[in-house]
Amino acid sequence: MANWIWHPGSFELYHSMLLHNRRTTTRTYEGGTRKSIYYYPMWRIDGPRHNAILEKKATINKPEVLKFYTNTDTANMVVDGKAYPRDSEVRLEAGEHTVVLQGYKKLGFPTFYVEGDTFKTDRTYVVGGADDKAGRHAGYSDYYTEPSHSPEVFRFCYERMYPVSKKEINGGTLFDFGKEVFGKITLDNLDGKDRFVALGESMEEALDVEFCQIGLNVSGDYFLSEPVAFRYIFVPELTGVETFVAFEFLPLENRGSFECDNELVNKLWDVCAYTMLLNSREGFFDGIKRDRWVWAGDAYQTNLVNYYLAFDKDIVRRTVRILRGADPITKHINTICDYTFLWIASVWDYYLYTGDEDFVRDIYPEILDMWAFIEPRLDTDGMYKRQPDDWVFIDWSTFDSNGPMCAENMLLARAYEVTEKYATLVGDDKWAEHARVRHEYIVSEINKRYWSEEKCAFVDDYKSGRNNVTRHANIFAILFDYTSEERKEKIIKNVILNDKITKITTPYFEFYELDAMCKIGNYEYMTNMLDSYWGEMIRLGATTIWEEFDPTKKGIEHYEMYGGKYEKSLCHAWGASPIYLLGKYALGVIPTDVGYKRYEVKPNTMTFGKISGKVPTPNGDIFVSIDKEKCEVVSEIDGGTLILGDKKYPIIKGEKLTIKL
Amino acid sequence: MANWIWHPGSFELYHSMLLHNRRTTTRTYEGGTRKSIYYYPMWRIDGPRHNAILEKKATINKPEVLKFYTNTDTANMVVDGKAYPRDSEVRLEAGEHTVVLQGYKKLGFPTFYVEGDTFKTDRTYVVGGADDKAGRHAGYSDYYTEPSHSPEVFRFCYERMYPVSKKEINGGTLFDFGKEVFGKITLDNLDGKDRFVALGESMEEALDVEFCQIGLNVSGDYFLSEPVAFRYIFVPELTGVETFVAFEFLPLENRGSFECDNELVNKLWDVCAYTMLLNSREGFFDGIKRDRWVWAGDAYQTNLVNYYLAFDKDIVRRTVRILRGADPITKHINTICDYTFLWIASVWDYYLYTGDEDFVRDIYPEILDMWAFIEPRLDTDGMYKRQPDDWVFIDWSTFDSNGPMCAENMLLARAYEVTEKYATLVGDDKWAEHARVRHEYIVSEINKRYWSEEKCAFVDDYKSGRNNVTRHANIFAILFDYTSEERKEKIIKNVILNDKITKITTPYFEFYELDAMCKIGNYEYMTNMLDSYWGEMIRLGATTIWEEFDPTKKGIEHYEMYGGKYEKSLCHAWGASPIYLLGKYALGVIPTDVGYKRYEVKPNTMTFGKISGKVPTPNGDIFVSIDKEKCEVVSEIDGGTLILGDKKYPIIKGEKLTIKL
Repeated sequence: MANWIWHPGSFELYHSMLLHNRRTTTRTYEGGTRKSIYYYPMWRIDGPRHNAILEKKATINKPEVLKFYTNTDTANMVVDGKAYPRDSEVRLEAGEHTVVLQGYKKLGFPTFYVEGDTFKTDRTYVVGGADDKAGRHAGYSDYYTEPSHSPEVFRFCYERMYPVSKKEINGGTLFDFGKEVFGKITLDNLDGKDRFVALGESMEEALDVEFCQIGLNVSGDYFLSEPVAFRYIFVPELTGVETFVAFEFLPLENRGSFECDNELVNKLWDVCAYTMLLNSREGFFDGIKRDRWVWAGDAYQTNLVNYYLAFDKDIVRRTVRILRGADPITKHINTICDYTFLWIASVWDYYLYTGDEDFVRDIYPEILDMWAFIEPRLDTDGMYKRQPDDWVFIDWSTFDSNGPMCAENMLLARAYEVTEKYATLVGDDKWAEHARVRHEYIVSEINKRYWSEEKCAFVDDYKSGRNNVTRHANIFAILFDYTSEERKEKIIKNVILNDKITKITTPYFEFYELDAMCKIGNYEYMTNMLDSYWGEMIRLGATTIWEEFDPTKKGIEHYEMYGGKYEKSLCHAWGASPIYLLGKYALGVIPTDVGYKRYEVKPNTMTFGKISGKVPTPNGDIFVSIDKEKCEVVSEIDGGTLILGDKKYPIIKGEKLTIKL
Repeated sequence: MANWIWHPGSFELYHSMLLHNRRTTTRTYEGGTRKSIYYYPMWRIDGPRHNAILEKKATINKPEVLKFYTNTDTANMVVDGKAYPRDSEVRLEAGEHTVVLQGYKKLGFPTFYVEGDTFKTDRTYVVGGADDKAGRHAGYSDYYTEPSHSPEVFRFCYERMYPVSKKEINGGTLFDFGKEVFGKITLDNLDGKDRFVALGESMEEALDVEFCQIGLNVSGDYFLSEPVAFRYIFVPELTGVETFVAFEFLPLENRGSFECDNELVNKLWDVCAYTMLLNSREGFFDGIKRDRWVWAGDAYQTNLVNYYLAFDKDIVRRTVRILRGADPITKHINTICDYTFLWIASVWDYYLYTGDEDFVRDIYPEILDMWAFIEPRLDTDGMYKRQPDDWVFIDWSTFDSNGPMCAENMLLARAYEVTEKYATLVGDDKWAEHARVRHEYIVSEINKRYWSEEKCAFVDDYKSGRNNVTRHANIFAILFDYTSEERKEKIIKNVILNDKITKITTPYFEFYELDAMCKIGNYEYMTNMLDSYWGEMIRLGATTIWEEFDPTKKGIEHYEMYGGKYEKSLCHAWGASPIYLLGKYALGVIPTDVGYKRYEVKPNTMTFGKISGKVPTPNGDIFVSIDKEKCEVVSEIDGGTLILGDKKYPIIKGEKLTIKL
């Protein structure tokens, strides 16, 4: 099977350009008119290359016939120096041949598809000609493998949905779809007048025409919107109107599953999975209502959740490339320095879970280009230094963040740590050694500079003298193993379990905190949080996980953020971490070598009576169940070890392993 | 009057992308089928940005009304933080305001037009937001100043033309348009069959269906081509066919003129002017038949010719930006190192002749980015060093060119020399000093390393030991004043006037040679060349100047180049130098301060009995005539001095100055 191929990154840059320009918001104008308007992207958006040249040289032992397809305005397939136009069929005799695909497309980006045997289009074509990326592998996607496919059209599926309820209220009509959805709205039986239709993730938002975050400017008798996210539609001052929605989604199969004897947890797992579905698109989105953008911090986590849910490799690769953007690199990813470091780290997780060495090779030069941007901005000793245009994020929290933040240096160290692995894989010994030295130095300096014996914690900033302690850097220290066991104990006692240290309020950082707590075996901390934090959203009727949650708030206070009454996203992918945490620590499935060549299953009932579920891997699923009496594992792949306490049992592919407890 | 504005460079990148993808050539396929096919660009072609954000902050003393136009898919005019859609009218009260224009366009590039007073769109808007070019001035063109204009459509004019003759020959129909033309060909009375129509700059080419360089694949009864260049059209195997052409051109007024008592020279001046017209398009093209591309070496000269002909500033600015391309810079311009240096130098000529300080300021950061590419590729001592992917061109000639060529170092020195001037203008003292030091060092080292006392000349390479002498570096030494008067004398005697040193065969390098010879007062060398070289082409019936000319060749041998029977371009802009040489040295008009604030008129009849003509300047024309008896100057601008021998006469604006000789 051949792939449509393109200049590496062009596919992702094109769809990224489209999606990052789709954000809208609402504004009120003179006389109270409400309008849905374009929201300009917050970072430089790159377009794709409009020219592409890709080539392959190979020796074939038997004749083959090439058939050349392309979407370009103009293109050649140059076979052994001779140019052929689109739709040509060319017979190659046995022997050495060179095929060069060259083309240009003004709108969109050039792509090529060649049917053949050895010379069929796939990743083995490389950039050619005078292109500055010469030698890099062609871009491709698992989604575009037939001549009839068009890589410029994203392969979404559509399903018609009707509201679950309709009622007349405030003189208008309110539709409820029963859960958050994303799709193209059709409105029928309109009255021809210009009007503003309010959408809401909550009923309150939809009815609050003056302040709702997303709306539609409607005119005529019939209306079809661009895809938008909502649960409620409110058509003011009109009754008798009808609606349905073309739900737009990627048909990702949830290969992972989880069940336990706590129905709330089962429900929240499903809600997390649905939150993931809505945000799984061209790449992993942050949230489906407001930004609908790709943010590297969010994606770092969503990628990990994906490995315990759909295990879709293509979406991770797309996400990584979307975030990378085009050259030249002149700002941090999403303008956020921690996101750049997490972007580099995310490739390691991808490789660990999938074993896709090709992608590491393909993205490696892009990572080095990123380092060429990062390193000149570091301090003279190579530690993180705040630059004027850095957005130091880490989390929505209050940090002592004007100086060289501890948490940033932790992430910088992590980025070097994984870069050593990439460099080793591709045989770049010089960079492997450089990254190793930098990683060790930074970890050692972090422990010297930022550790406060008085606070028994890492402080935000060692220069400011404030010795401010937040959870974040301390969590990273545990998560990345960047300090001694003794200090970890102190951190747990004096930071994590210390109510005086400001609590984490975003599901984003809960991810890291709970990952760290599970890592040190404090499962109850995690299951308590599932109940008090995620569980509370579910009890409040959430059909998807929110961007942020503060249990002390009431009613529509929950929906406020960034100064907007309903600006909070109620369907935010970074909240789906329970899928990852339960898969990794309750079902206990963890790859110990890349691509699950070797893996461990360390199931743990935690505070549940029994659990069961499936974890996907590149070559099959692993089914695990455990209760007080027995543990069962059925795996479709070799290389596994079941670990129960201090006992280890080899897992044989296809054979049910049952251990009485 | 407002301008349409855009992200700086986007207009040029867009049109550059279109034009560099328009080249075609012909190939023969199985069974002898001839086809016109796409010719892929030889360097990376960049597209425009598809997003743009431009802003302006100003205080106004009286109210004004802004009206917002845009070509975008989606856009806002954000006035004091409030977003308005396209076609909005917004009233600003007196006071301080900020206007931000932000938009996105998938096909083409985003442009904005705001009617207003202070806030009307023009260069004073700057790039805003998180864009890496923040603070740089908006892009604009003199050609797009009305709301009805569309910067994505290049403003060509069209004129219908009919062939001057038609005859049946070889069973087909041959049309002759009497001179080289460029336009869209209409063919009527076709017979519905697929056929290949041959085009020719010469009759021989058009009739040589098997080897002609450019052709058309025609089918149906009626055919309209994309614009192409030709003088002859040959429709094989068909009679009764009719044709006409929509001649496509820029309506540039030839403000410069020249006449003398040598009719051949008058004719070749007109042929040069027509050659310029055909190649004056989105930027200055090399030639109109084959490449139709923008090459920096060619443009360096064409720019100079333009200052004595149409004096169109916009086309020079466009040419400079087209050549610059987008970031990142990863290869030399057109992949040729000498062209990068000439590109930097070309901005100085533009500034000297036009006085357009704004453009120097706008392009200055782009020049520094170019230096950031150049300098790491230099040798440890900062001299030119050949890099593996450098195309060392200088000229079509045989050089000792594997090492650090003298001519390249001359051009490198020249690039530093002018960069010092740019840096001084924009107040970048550090770079001014750096460039000054580098320029002086390189000139001094050139004189140490490359001068051969034995050969009395600069040699190509001081390392190879071959001591090969070509004219090129020696010409640069005279032209840029990079050696002593004593050495210049030796060069003239031992190189320029030495028939044993390989002659220049391209009009390209004739430009430099004749400029240098005129500079040292050897006008006869130039006028002889006008007769023997340009004149010979005219005598052979040229209606435009050829890419290369070798008087020893005969018949269709003249049309051969690069291994193709008719691959030579017979309409090549670099051949138009007589306009420059006659304007600068015969009419003798030279700016001595930027923008003709001060200028000299040193007319010289050379080998002619009398000459007269006009030279354009930014603010008016200068008319000069001289014969054996008197010299007359009428100038529309102040600041001039007439120099005749050792006598000087001030030129008063608007007053005829007549000096008896």
